[in-house]
Amino acid sequence: MLKLFYATGTCALASHIALEDAGAEYETVRLDFRSNDQRKPEYLALNPKGRVPALVTDRGILTETPAILVFIAQTFPEAHLAPLDDAFALAQVQAFNSYLCSTVHVAHAHRVRGYRWVDADDAAAIVAMQKKVPQSVAECFDLIEREMFAGPWVMGTSYTICDPYLFTLARWMEADGVESSHFSKVHDHLRRMSERPAVKRVLAQETALAG
Amino acid sequence: MLKLFYATGTCALASHIALEDAGAEYETVRLDFRSNDQRKPEYLALNPKGRVPALVTDRGILTETPAILVFIAQTFPEAHLAPLDDAFALAQVQAFNSYLCSTVHVAHAHRVRGYRWVDADDAAAIVAMQKKVPQSVAECFDLIEREMFAGPWVMGTSYTICDPYLFTLARWMEADGVESSHFSKVHDHLRRMSERPAVKRVLAQETALAG
Repeated sequence: MLKLFYATGTCALASHIALEDAGAEYETVRLDFRSNDQRKPEYLALNPKGRVPALVTDRGILTETPAILVFIAQTFPEAHLAPLDDAFALAQVQAFNSYLCSTVHVAHAHRVRGYRWVDADDAAAIVAMQKKVPQSVAECFDLIEREMFAGPWVMGTSYTICDPYLFTLARWMEADGVESSHFSKVHDHLRRMSERPAVKRVLAQETALAG
Repeated sequence: MLKLFYATGTCALASHIALEDAGAEYETVRLDFRSNDQRKPEYLALNPKGRVPALVTDRGILTETPAILVFIAQTFPEAHLAPLDDAFALAQVQAFNSYLCSTVHVAHAHRVRGYRWVDADDAAAIVAMQKKVPQSVAECFDLIEREMFAGPWVMGTSYTICDPYLFTLARWMEADGVESSHFSKVHDHLRRMSERPAVKRVLAQETALAG
């Protein structure tokens, strides 16, 4: 059975929602980033990147959200989560998810994980990065709002693997100092996503007390 | 006909090589980043991101290297550039390319485009970012060398769309302050890639004097 390693509040939420959207049979393992679970030897033996998400399949482990999302769409084609038979339309899905991963998530990460790109002891540089985040994240969502979001779902009339991924990153916007209400399409998408039963189930599970 | 917008010395090289590998009919348009061609109104009208690569198709424009590479592999299946009929193997290809795009390229970009993540006038923060690049880029290639590179090609015996992308980013390593000879598999891959006729043709074209 598929097994998803995730941590609460991370981009693994996108893969978690997609598994639920797909009607997949899967189990989950929650890592606690406060305990640094993701750097412990037993997890590094499974996923040397020391990050989430990681999806364990019967053929091995998969990482990287855009890869996992297309894998879920291909493995559960009856859920129609991506335009698998149309190379151009699939490339548009991939381009959107690649932008989220390499530009939007990266812009956000400069607020909370600046030590990846400067010496962790350089407090001034860490603060300089954090200061820019509201601007760089807002620029991303401005581009998404103006140029990428077809509506009512990201790709238009069909819900795809772009939707849980956008939802996941858009949830971070307010904490990044960006008012989501400035981006009406993204804001409305956030609301409609959070009303989907699959999303409610996943969020309830991810935020339930560990036990 | 497909038309690739690129600039010399950028990650657009990966898509350019893949088009050549695929035996595609295509034309290219070179942008000059020193003249800021990528921010001029006529290019922004085509690609609002103001970046390269951009691939113009008869159905519209595509951006983001991982998306363009899979599109090329799907459009020219006879070139066998990706395991299109195997969801797990394709996800491994995608995970590799996603890591290059969102982690390796991003680590590199902190040397040359730090203004994306701090105020451009903050010279100390720009320098702090540049100082970390040799370490962060080396960590990426260490992980690739130890955990990801199957050999002789990235995914094993079959050449795939991972190979031109790795080649493209590995060519930046020395300028990032990382000795490629420390990573023997990646170093050997660089050499074997540069001997491929398709790669030689593309590099000759990209570095030919404009005129």
